[in-house]
Amino acid sequence: MSIYPIMMSQTNFIHRDSLHYPFEERGSQFGDGVYEVIRVYNGNYYLLEEHVNRLFRSAEAIKIDLPFTKETLTDLLLTLVEKNSMTTDGKVYLQVTRGAAPRDHVFPENTHANIYAYVQDLPRKLENLENGVCTITQPDVRWENCYIKSLNLLPNVLAKQAAKEAGCYEAILHKDGLVTECSSSNVFMVKDNKIYTFPATKRILHGCVRMRVQQFAADLNLLFIEEGFTTEDILLADELFLSSTTSEIMPIIQVDGQQIGDGKPGKITKQLQQAYEADANIAQMQN
Amino acid sequence: MSIYPIMMSQTNFIHRDSLHYPFEERGSQFGDGVYEVIRVYNGNYYLLEEHVNRLFRSAEAIKIDLPFTKETLTDLLLTLVEKNSMTTDGKVYLQVTRGAAPRDHVFPENTHANIYAYVQDLPRKLENLENGVCTITQPDVRWENCYIKSLNLLPNVLAKQAAKEAGCYEAILHKDGLVTECSSSNVFMVKDNKIYTFPATKRILHGCVRMRVQQFAADLNLLFIEEGFTTEDILLADELFLSSTTSEIMPIIQVDGQQIGDGKPGKITKQLQQAYEADANIAQMQN
Repeated sequence: MSIYPIMMSQTNFIHRDSLHYPFEERGSQFGDGVYEVIRVYNGNYYLLEEHVNRLFRSAEAIKIDLPFTKETLTDLLLTLVEKNSMTTDGKVYLQVTRGAAPRDHVFPENTHANIYAYVQDLPRKLENLENGVCTITQPDVRWENCYIKSLNLLPNVLAKQAAKEAGCYEAILHKDGLVTECSSSNVFMVKDNKIYTFPATKRILHGCVRMRVQQFAADLNLLFIEEGFTTEDILLADELFLSSTTSEIMPIIQVDGQQIGDGKPGKITKQLQQAYEADANIAQMQN
Repeated sequence: MSIYPIMMSQTNFIHRDSLHYPFEERGSQFGDGVYEVIRVYNGNYYLLEEHVNRLFRSAEAIKIDLPFTKETLTDLLLTLVEKNSMTTDGKVYLQVTRGAAPRDHVFPENTHANIYAYVQDLPRKLENLENGVCTITQPDVRWENCYIKSLNLLPNVLAKQAAKEAGCYEAILHKDGLVTECSSSNVFMVKDNKIYTFPATKRILHGCVRMRVQQFAADLNLLFIEEGFTTEDILLADELFLSSTTSEIMPIIQVDGQQIGDGKPGKITKQLQQAYEADANIAQMQN
């Protein structure tokens, strides 16, 4: 639980109960902002540099001027975890908006970005990681620039809620016949020892863990193929898994009620999970 | 300017400086909410019932439970204008979110919708209404459910900003070759005394003024045709105009630097403007 959120436009730290979001904030009224969720294991960041880089890319894509350098932001995020005396597994939520101004679609003048970040405990989802999860498919109705990690998340919320109401963990999204990603994670298919995933175009978020999966695959001498596949293809997959900051590398054992492979986490998925644990320097699950 | 915002989940009125948006508000973190902008002329609402009805439709579409009836909300909105002693031209901004809860895509349990609304002065844009405005075209990159008036407005913001940077008033959006609407208004083409506009599908917002334009057209014995047309078609239009709560019925005299018709507001557009002024019970412009 977070004691200190940070308001980084002023580079200061305040108690979370003292955080007051301004009236007419463009984050609230337009979703005019970007964010990151960063993993913390035993009080240490995982892939911090990758997340900071992506925040800057997202902000640049929607022309928000960030009031700090990557180095300053990194220092602030390190101080945040320290000030919260965080030594467990958790995550940091970091949000930047274009700022507060009288409501008008066009960018306001004479304002500055609003930033806040806070830590939250987040135990690893060990049971799901070991046994795999069930999913449903949903049409991908999102906008065309999903590579921007923006605050416009309503379609993601609705897809994830549909999954929950179906008793599932995630929703696999598909557009124009192809599987793009999930509501809050990337998705991968294993077929004949090759790993397939949707290419890193504007249509999907370029996940930080997705990027690591590509590296793990190379280390394991597995072909990593960025190529579209269909909702029919995944039912015939040898293995299926998803990746995200909060879900790590998560086996998928069911899609729309149909079993994938033998209904258990696959061999390659487990190898990638082990590579993840080594990379994040965390204790290994019992595989 | 607004003295009293209203926090209607508690059906109470507070001073705008006392409004504190909660930490971890789903409106800020996911754009998980819906809104309305309602026109006020001389202290009187215009199309209030239509806006209230649409708010309820939007909320239902994303499964937000509103904590009041249409009648209660209407009363609260009337009281808001009264408490602000508003007798001029203005608008009311009204926003409803799914509420505050620890960040998670799925709908939270044990929370309630957060509502606020406030008034703002908004003089009629008489010069633009009389002379017409310039526009640019932009690809419509929005999600597939634009009929929901949601807080996910980033693509609209970026399109409007592109228009402003081109020295224009609005951006006309097009998708799959067809003109859908503008960044914050509906758009209409007049050709051979017929009025064309994109059909009221999920692809566009069903504007309250758009609905009135349909009625005005019927009153004027003009054909109103809900049918797609292209960015090439509009360059050959006799007249072009847009409609919205804040822009009313606004003549378009230029698209991407090319003159429309004779470069002046058209005859039918002016007739519709007069019908609007009669309907809203406001003083006529000099036409």
